Amino acid sequence: MSTSQPRRALNIDNINPHVKAAQYAVRGELAVRSEEYRAALAKGEGKDLPFDTVIAANIGNPQQLDQKPITFFRQVASLLENPLLLEHEDVLINSLGYKSDVIARAKWLLKEIKSVGAYSQSQGAPGIRESVAKFIERRDGYPASSKDIYLSTGASSGVNTLLHVIAAKPETGILVPIPQYPLYTATLSVLDARCVPYYLEESKSWGTNLQAIQEAYDKAVSEGTDVKAIVIINPGNPTGASLTPADIKAVLKFAAEKSLVVMADEVYQTNVFIGEFVSFKKALRDLQKETPGKYDTLELASLHSISKGMVGECGHRGGYFELVSFDPEVAAEIYKFISIQLCPPVLGQCIVEVMVNPPKKGEPSFELYNKEYTNIFEGLKKRAYALYEAFKQMEGVEIDEPQGSMYLFPTIKLPAKAIKQAEKEGRKPDDFYCFRLLDATGVCVVPGSGFGQKEGTLHFRTTFLAPGTDWTGRIVKFHKDFMDEFRE
Amino acid sequence: MSTSQPRRALNIDNINPHVKAAQYAVRGELAVRSEEYRAALAKGEGKDLPFDTVIAANIGNPQQLDQKPITFFRQVASLLENPLLLEHEDVLINSLGYKSDVIARAKWLLKEIKSVGAYSQSQGAPGIRESVAKFIERRDGYPASSKDIYLSTGASSGVNTLLHVIAAKPETGILVPIPQYPLYTATLSVLDARCVPYYLEESKSWGTNLQAIQEAYDKAVSEGTDVKAIVIINPGNPTGASLTPADIKAVLKFAAEKSLVVMADEVYQTNVFIGEFVSFKKALRDLQKETPGKYDTLELASLHSISKGMVGECGHRGGYFELVSFDPEVAAEIYKFISIQLCPPVLGQCIVEVMVNPPKKGEPSFELYNKEYTNIFEGLKKRAYALYEAFKQMEGVEIDEPQGSMYLFPTIKLPAKAIKQAEKEGRKPDDFYCFRLLDATGVCVVPGSGFGQKEGTLHFRTTFLAPGTDWTGRIVKFHKDFMDEFRE
Repeated sequence: MSTSQPRRALNIDNINPHVKAAQYAVRGELAVRSEEYRAALAKGEGKDLPFDTVIAANIGNPQQLDQKPITFFRQVASLLENPLLLEHEDVLINSLGYKSDVIARAKWLLKEIKSVGAYSQSQGAPGIRESVAKFIERRDGYPASSKDIYLSTGASSGVNTLLHVIAAKPETGILVPIPQYPLYTATLSVLDARCVPYYLEESKSWGTNLQAIQEAYDKAVSEGTDVKAIVIINPGNPTGASLTPADIKAVLKFAAEKSLVVMADEVYQTNVFIGEFVSFKKALRDLQKETPGKYDTLELASLHSISKGMVGECGHRGGYFELVSFDPEVAAEIYKFISIQLCPPVLGQCIVEVMVNPPKKGEPSFELYNKEYTNIFEGLKKRAYALYEAFKQMEGVEIDEPQGSMYLFPTIKLPAKAIKQAEKEGRKPDDFYCFRLLDATGVCVVPGSGFGQKEGTLHFRTTFLAPGTDWTGRIVKFHKDFMDEFRE
Repeated sequence: MSTSQPRRALNIDNINPHVKAAQYAVRGELAVRSEEYRAALAKGEGKDLPFDTVIAANIGNPQQLDQKPITFFRQVASLLENPLLLEHEDVLINSLGYKSDVIARAKWLLKEIKSVGAYSQSQGAPGIRESVAKFIERRDGYPASSKDIYLSTGASSGVNTLLHVIAAKPETGILVPIPQYPLYTATLSVLDARCVPYYLEESKSWGTNLQAIQEAYDKAVSEGTDVKAIVIINPGNPTGASLTPADIKAVLKFAAEKSLVVMADEVYQTNVFIGEFVSFKKALRDLQKETPGKYDTLELASLHSISKGMVGECGHRGGYFELVSFDPEVAAEIYKFISIQLCPPVLGQCIVEVMVNPPKKGEPSFELYNKEYTNIFEGLKKRAYALYEAFKQMEGVEIDEPQGSMYLFPTIKLPAKAIKQAEKEGRKPDDFYCFRLLDATGVCVVPGSGFGQKEGTLHFRTTFLAPGTDWTGRIVKFHKDFMDEFRE
């Protein structure tokens, strides 16, 4: 036996360096500090704090804030969880207000899945994948097949799966928009593959700029990067930008020319205030019709989620991706990869089903569903515009009209003195600003550096989910005080 | 624009080779074929098949078969899904048979999580982690802290997280028992780290053999492997073996001597028929008491799940791991890694809570809970022994008395002629046997090669979850016919 001193196997210097390198600011140090404030206030220990509530505007988590779940979805879910309730249909209907379509849907789903406590096929329950395919057909006007649908544990696990399969070697590169949702850069770090950043055009409402994409691609290739895919987030996160069909087609043409997989992150597809959402799948099928043959092998993976939209069921971890034109052998590897984690949460799969197949006009639950859905949509829009109006008044803040998603991403111009102070404290200027905001107001936002931003520009991302206008007022007051403090 | 022929970006030769290398037989070709049979029978297309039902004995998925969920768990879950039901307590109690402790638990959980539709902390909701810590304290008689508990998406995602952080480089090695649940080898393949196999001792009821572990370790080190951890599955999968406290301590001492992280996969901790489950955490604390100072830095990660035991809530994807003695900087990296996927399913977290904190004696739901729990346990045991008795009679089959878990893992000795035929068909002999079994009987099991087995030995793993005895009879008859067919 060795007599050496006991020592730990793992320390910060010998664990996986790629995990260490990953950055994920949405739940980083700021979020942790905001949770500490929240816990202190809950225990009555926060008497010294200059605020009495913490506002989590850092993450799109509607039900942690004001948003109520959609009744139809949750009534169905309650029956899936306790199918014994179905032995009391009279009580459900007469005493609890359940409608017949709730009961019918629950029965149908139970037939498809047998139990929410049973593993499903790794790709998701076949009947639910059928529903998703039909939804895509209705949305796009083009056929879809349940064989190409892969249910996932939120869209995040879908992204994780796709990047795992694509990232063949350290030279593999993926074009990622900047600013971006940091899931992409973090996962590429873990996989030791290359993020090939392309900048979105802030001056054009954060749209894609094909020249910027081309330049990013060329630069990467010249550096020996094997660029295999391009990520598009539409509507944008953190930007809210909604792409036009022309923009989408331009990206598809570029991808076809360079043989790139297109990863279309479309989780905010119903959060659109201006214009209309057009899916990459529809745009691709349109292109294929316009130019037969030319785009037949263009691979597209399109992702969706139950966490966003008017559904907001983040905690249920449901989502799906559709594969278009993937080589069957590659699809088989994707299947094997996801099978190692057995299957996505089955109740999350069921919530996907009710999301893509909600009550229709004339059905008993439609009226309430429609009212709830519309109220959530209007509420989000109203808050987005209220926040926008507040930001417009703030000195040194530039902001576009809200277009969609759940976020605003204003530019902030900070005084040189503030930037110097940030440097002194070892923080990036936007980090410094956001910490000051949190410490002064309890409002937690995410600095632009967490998403990436052009050198020399500063931003922050805030959700517009929190109820009331008090917290908006807190930001306005803080900003004024901050600017006054650091004015030269 | 390039005029080259369109081609796909991805093909089987240019995707991630480590994903390609991963093998996961539990959901492999056999399982896929069995699903095809099932689908054909469901459509009335299976008239030619020599069986009328498919028996999924390949995977521990109790609720896909006969097992009913535990009523208390699902009543609580139904209220979490539809909290509006809590406005009708009288109906719940008087018309639907809900007890007051069901309602109280649902209210408490809703206070802790706010909504099952909201993201929780990435590590899991604090109140639920508190419950888990208290459960561990009661189980082991030693303190536990919610700070060290990490809720997960089933135990599988916990394993994935831990291996991700440990696998620093291609030379990193993890000691893995053979036979093993293939999650370990598959994940190590994906991570491009080394599996260091150590054989369990079949002649001693599949217990650990310290000499075999030492030899595997020495061989790996001599080949330049940096061995960082040892995986133990206790009770065993696929073997069912239950380790004695002395075996566990021997492993812990070895790990301490070599500075290895101990990963204790304890998901079958309540599936024990012979003897009593002792956790690695308890054994470690005992050792630390016996020899103060010596084992203070031994890192242990212990995993548990809601998918197994008498709970069997696989589809809800819930689990947790407890970290013992991990460096706080390493734990912070684990936290960051899991935060990239936001949080485990919140309802799965709630099922973890009711699993670790079920109704207590004297509480309104206790009697029914206890009856259901005991019936499931006794049912599993009865089926295990029925299968064992059947296997004992089969020619060339060797089998130990069932000890625990959900599986039997008999040795099969096949005639040389059968092995030759397998070779001719390009299959491993156990693979060949299992395909023949499926094609003849509709019973799907997993060949031993999917878990690893000593050179020259053959096994298969079957669950003992399927109801009835008909399918056991099918296996017995098939085996006799098979042996007759290939007898020399």
